[in-house]
Amino acid sequence: MFVAINYITCKEDYKDRFEQLFKSRAKAIDKMPGFRTMHVLKPTDNEGDYLIVSHWDEEKNFADWTNSAEFLEGHRRGFKDIREAKEKGLEPPMKSNFKTYQVIAD
Amino acid sequence: MFVAINYITCKEDYKDRFEQLFKSRAKAIDKMPGFRTMHVLKPTDNEGDYLIVSHWDEEKNFADWTNSAEFLEGHRRGFKDIREAKEKGLEPPMKSNFKTYQVIAD
Repeated sequence: MFVAINYITCKEDYKDRFEQLFKSRAKAIDKMPGFRTMHVLKPTDNEGDYLIVSHWDEEKNFADWTNSAEFLEGHRRGFKDIREAKEKGLEPPMKSNFKTYQVIAD
Repeated sequence: MFVAINYITCKEDYKDRFEQLFKSRAKAIDKMPGFRTMHVLKPTDNEGDYLIVSHWDEEKNFADWTNSAEFLEGHRRGFKDIREAKEKGLEPPMKSNFKTYQVIAD
């Protein structure tokens, strides 16, 4: 099993919006071949990154998702927020950093 | 749902041993009240921390586990490796850093 974690550094004044985006997410990812589960994790101490953890049958399934029309649709509102900040000359409200993993034991 | 992630920084020459410990783990955690799942994640690029991700019904279940006899039993071999390195005046073969999370969307 393959796991992708997107580590999201979120500006303080964007956190409510970020959480709202996920609570009302498009569920575009759920229909992708090889998709198993996803969880959005918020640090209990409110410090550090949010983690978006998705489980896949294999790495190819995850790669296909990141190159899909569904990926763009699923991120439409967040990408719009980033684009609008850029157009105003502001820092992006969130930054993301993907890391990928193999499950070696469960 | 509550999630604990133990970020493990592992010395290069201890990685095989570390992985072996988990592939033959005692499964002490599996019997704890409120335990749901655990996954041991290895970075696909072999850089950075291993992640031990455990899911629980609630935070109290995780706290009870870390204070249990089963916790000591489940970590017996790893703790022994750390103790032996210390006795020889060596750096510990691994360092761990727990962070805890709430699942805000799935």
